[in-house]
Amino acid sequence: MSNKNDTGKAYHLKCTGDALRTADAHSAPSDWTLFGSCFCPFVQRVWVALEYFGMDYHYYEVDPYKKPPELLEVSPKGLVPALKFNNLETPRSLNESIVILEYLEDVATVQKKGSLLPPISDPYARALMRLQADHINRNLVPAFYRYLQAQEPEKQIEGGREFISAIEGLVKLFERAAAETNTDVGLWKEGGKLSLADVMAGPWLFRATHVLVHYRGFTLPEDAKFRAYIDRLVSHPAFKSTCSTEELYLESYERYAYNRPNTSQVANAINSGRGLP
Amino acid sequence: MSNKNDTGKAYHLKCTGDALRTADAHSAPSDWTLFGSCFCPFVQRVWVALEYFGMDYHYYEVDPYKKPPELLEVSPKGLVPALKFNNLETPRSLNESIVILEYLEDVATVQKKGSLLPPISDPYARALMRLQADHINRNLVPAFYRYLQAQEPEKQIEGGREFISAIEGLVKLFERAAAETNTDVGLWKEGGKLSLADVMAGPWLFRATHVLVHYRGFTLPEDAKFRAYIDRLVSHPAFKSTCSTEELYLESYERYAYNRPNTSQVANAINSGRGLP
Repeated sequence: MSNKNDTGKAYHLKCTGDALRTADAHSAPSDWTLFGSCFCPFVQRVWVALEYFGMDYHYYEVDPYKKPPELLEVSPKGLVPALKFNNLETPRSLNESIVILEYLEDVATVQKKGSLLPPISDPYARALMRLQADHINRNLVPAFYRYLQAQEPEKQIEGGREFISAIEGLVKLFERAAAETNTDVGLWKEGGKLSLADVMAGPWLFRATHVLVHYRGFTLPEDAKFRAYIDRLVSHPAFKSTCSTEELYLESYERYAYNRPNTSQVANAINSGRGLP
Repeated sequence: MSNKNDTGKAYHLKCTGDALRTADAHSAPSDWTLFGSCFCPFVQRVWVALEYFGMDYHYYEVDPYKKPPELLEVSPKGLVPALKFNNLETPRSLNESIVILEYLEDVATVQKKGSLLPPISDPYARALMRLQADHINRNLVPAFYRYLQAQEPEKQIEGGREFISAIEGLVKLFERAAAETNTDVGLWKEGGKLSLADVMAGPWLFRATHVLVHYRGFTLPEDAKFRAYIDRLVSHPAFKSTCSTEELYLESYERYAYNRPNTSQVANAINSGRGLP
């Protein structure tokens, strides 16, 4: 299912593959509404967490070029993800993927539905995971967009280097946590459980495996440990259940790859050298 | 006590006033070492939290132009704050003010020493506070530096507008939390307790009251509620105990205000349009 965007190009209005099956399974009204867009990695973070914790929610696909009034009510800028609470007298909602993730983590802790962080009895292990999360948000994610939006060859080379260096930085933090703590939270360790950092980095690492490969001839680091990590991540049931087919991502990111006029607030922030919205 | 920096200007090597008294009271070795620099607002965040929770620590003043090997061991880039743990066989440490704050919050929760967040039984109130924290880091803090480092009059006017708008955004989030939750955490409410957001924004709001006033002719919003909030913040015992005298800040920020060659990684990130280090 596709439509024309503001540059006359077709775009997807619906998930495909596993993500479509998951969206369909969550099409009924529920206490929570997740406003999402099928290709959006920030949405995928929240979606993976909801699936991981086995929480009940209604998935509401938003047309990014025709934002529905229901979304604008809870997010004046129309940013997704947004999580709306329907079971209250006064409507409430949350924005910002990381804020929603921490909220879901707190709810899961209270309801004993598992955790994306090491337990509070190991504050140092939790801190090392927050260090990973901080690196992902401030380095890995912006580096992905700078690389994908770079047009001149030298800028693309620089972008590729920066993205690889952000991945290496993340691996270093994973290795540090493995060396300094005994936590079983984190897919970096074989047999480990899904972590906050996995959920936060996953959508971009996953997109690197096809979008960056396709548009930038990117090669993932060949290190066997890193490849095994990526395999564990993309095949994790909670992650996989939120993934559309490759074609959807390739088509959705074409306008980023050619840096075409774009209503994406992320794309424009990168072009203007400002922090992400 | 002062020294010459790389542009031949004198700079402070020691806290003054209340902060000096607090540093002196924490000059003995302890299980934790806080590496700090007397004028640094990121350090002040962590320092306020340590004071608020009544935790034991050794305050170690770092000369930012001659970083001691003890700091470079735990932070290769020599960034402060750094928190080093001395009571372990293998030395460990943490960087990044927000990561250290969350660590201290976890430790305080385990040790029942209070909390800078609403309790986990109210995840929505916690989420609204994390929304405040996110706004502070991504909007308020960068706006402070863009304003202070702006040289051309029109850039300074724009910087002032942007900083005011970041304050207004924070006030809006404070008001939202007051309207939508019943938490007693947050100084915005009269009688409220110190919050994570207060600790995270405090150092820059405090510097706005003299550094921006002095170098940019800045006027704080006159709204009585906001003024009362600032009063509660700067007179809070934990906050006050980490404040040097006005003269120290005015002298320390002179090189930012004239945007002189500066080894500050924060100043250089702002000049290059990148996110803060």
